[in-house]
Amino acid sequence: MSILPEEFAIIGTYFAPLAGEGAFGLTDDAAILAPPPNRELAICADAIVEGVHFLPSDPPDLVARKLLRVNLSDLAAMGATPLSYLLTVSVGRATPKTWFAGFAAGLAADQATFNLRLLGGDTTSTPGPISLSATLIGHLAPGTALRRTGAQPGDGLWVTGTIGDAALGLLALQGKIPDPTGFLANRYHLPQPRLGLALHGIAHAGMDISDGLLQDAAHLCRAAGLAAEIDADKIPLSTAARGAGLLKTCLTGGDDYELLLAVPTAQEPALIDVCGRAAIPITRIGAMRPGPPYVHVLGGDLEPNTTATQGWSHF
Amino acid sequence: MSILPEEFAIIGTYFAPLAGEGAFGLTDDAAILAPPPNRELAICADAIVEGVHFLPSDPPDLVARKLLRVNLSDLAAMGATPLSYLLTVSVGRATPKTWFAGFAAGLAADQATFNLRLLGGDTTSTPGPISLSATLIGHLAPGTALRRTGAQPGDGLWVTGTIGDAALGLLALQGKIPDPTGFLANRYHLPQPRLGLALHGIAHAGMDISDGLLQDAAHLCRAAGLAAEIDADKIPLSTAARGAGLLKTCLTGGDDYELLLAVPTAQEPALIDVCGRAAIPITRIGAMRPGPPYVHVLGGDLEPNTTATQGWSHF
Repeated sequence: MSILPEEFAIIGTYFAPLAGEGAFGLTDDAAILAPPPNRELAICADAIVEGVHFLPSDPPDLVARKLLRVNLSDLAAMGATPLSYLLTVSVGRATPKTWFAGFAAGLAADQATFNLRLLGGDTTSTPGPISLSATLIGHLAPGTALRRTGAQPGDGLWVTGTIGDAALGLLALQGKIPDPTGFLANRYHLPQPRLGLALHGIAHAGMDISDGLLQDAAHLCRAAGLAAEIDADKIPLSTAARGAGLLKTCLTGGDDYELLLAVPTAQEPALIDVCGRAAIPITRIGAMRPGPPYVHVLGGDLEPNTTATQGWSHF
Repeated sequence: MSILPEEFAIIGTYFAPLAGEGAFGLTDDAAILAPPPNRELAICADAIVEGVHFLPSDPPDLVARKLLRVNLSDLAAMGATPLSYLLTVSVGRATPKTWFAGFAAGLAADQATFNLRLLGGDTTSTPGPISLSATLIGHLAPGTALRRTGAQPGDGLWVTGTIGDAALGLLALQGKIPDPTGFLANRYHLPQPRLGLALHGIAHAGMDISDGLLQDAAHLCRAAGLAAEIDADKIPLSTAARGAGLLKTCLTGGDDYELLLAVPTAQEPALIDVCGRAAIPITRIGAMRPGPPYVHVLGGDLEPNTTATQGWSHF
C-alpha cells in the first residue's frame, strides 16, 4: 500500500536495480528468503528521521548509507554476517528525483561494500520530515550470537575504534565547533560497522555503542547485574576529538557505532589477534566488577556526578 | 539508536511483554530467528503515516492492528503463514503513555489472532506526524509462493470478500457519506488479511488488492503480459457499498486487502472448495485474455475512459 506520485516509476527506476535474489524485482507482495543451510538469522530494524537522526542538509547518499550502517552495526554486535535488507521510505510528495537518485546511489555503494541485497519495502508520501526505516537480516552459526548478557566480574571492558567523533561531528555540522579536515563530520555521516570479528568464545558480552558510551555501558551492567569501572583517560579519542577537548560530549554523545565488549583476561590475546587481523583498533578502557549496576568513571576532566540518573557517575 | 524521552521505560512497559522467542526481551541489538525446518521465509515491509494512511483521530489500537494487517495481507498474497514481526515507531516527544498502551494493546490482540510474535524494532521521536513501519516474516513450503506472474489467457479473475468498503469507510470517517452501522469505517480501520488459503497449484497468479482493484488488476496484467476483462456488475459489493452507489470509488479506492487471483477453469472447483472451507467469500469477476496489458471494464455505471493512464478503461 503506497500513496506517492509516480511511485511505481520511482521504484522501477531507482530501487528495482538494487533488488537481489528472491525480491522478484520488487514487483511482488513479499520477498522469498531461503536461509543459508545450518545458519540462524539475526534481524533488526532501526528508523531514522530527518531533523532527529540526520540533518535536512545531509546528502541523500550519506543518509542512505547511515540508515544501512546503523543497522549493520547491530548485526556486527551480534556477530552476524549481513545478508539482505528491506526499506521503508516516507518522503514529501514534491521530493525531486535527484533525491531518489542520490539515495539509491548510497544504497548501491553500501550494498557493494557489505555484500548486501535489497529484498523489498515500501515507498510512500508524508506531509512531515523524511522518515526512513530499514530491517537488516544477517546469518550466523547457531548458538554463536554475542549477547549483551553474560559479562563476568573481572572481565576487561574494551571498545573498538575511537569514541565521540560522531557527537562532535554533529556539533561541527551545526557550526558549533571547528572541523577543518571534515573528519568529525564524516564520522557522523558514515558510521563504520565493525563487522567480521569472530568474537564467539572470546567476549562474554557485547553490544554496539549507539546512545553514548556511558549509557550503553550502563545497559551492559544491567544485563549482567554488575558494575563497571571506566578509566576516562584510557578511552580512545581521535586526534580531532582530543583537539576539541569536549570529553563529556564524547562519552555521552551518541552515534559511535563502535563495539563495547566484556572480555575475560585469558581471552585478551585472542581479542587483540582477531581485531588486529581485521585492522580494527581495540582498546581496554576498564573492567566489570561486583556491585549494583552502575558505571563508575575514574579520571578525565569531567564535572562530578551530575548525571547519575543515566546509570553512571564520575569520581 | 533512539532519541525519545523515557524510551527504555516505554519499551520495557509496553513492547517487551509482546516479545517472542529469540527477541531477548527487546534488550539486545538484534533478534535471532531460527527458520522452521524445510521452510522458506516470506518477508515484506510497509510503512503507514498519520494523515496519509490513517487519521489522527483513529484509535491507536486500530492503527497498530492496521499496520500489522496491511503486511499480513502481503503474506497472505504469497501463501505464507505468519511467524513474527519487527516494528519501528516514530512519534512526537509529547505522545502520552495512553497512546502507547492503546497501540500495544492492538498489537497484542492481533498477535493472538494471527499467532505472531514481536522480534524487535525501534522507537524514536519525530517532529512530524506519527510514522510507523512493520516488517512481517512468514514461512511456506519451498517453491509454493503465489506470485503475481503466471496468469494465462482464459484464467478466471477472482476476488475474495467485497470490494470498495474501505475506500467508502474513509469517506464516511471524513463525514462525506453516511455509515449508520459503522460497517464501512470498520472495513477501513481493520483489514481482514485472507490468510490460510492453500492456493498453490490452484491459482496461476495472485496478489493483494491494496491500491484499488483496477490499478492492481493492471499490475497482474503487466506481470503476465496479458489483458483482463472485468465485468463491473459482477464485482462483489457489500450491502453498505451498494447503498452508497459510488462504484468508481469502490473500484479505484485503496485499502481493500482482498486477494485478486487468476485461476484456470479446471481449478475453479478446488478454489471454491478451499475458500468455502475457510469461510472466505470468493467471486469470479472476469477473465484474463490475450492482448496488451490493460484492464477492460464492462458494464457498471462508470463514466467512459477517463483514467486510461492508470492501465484500465471502461467500455
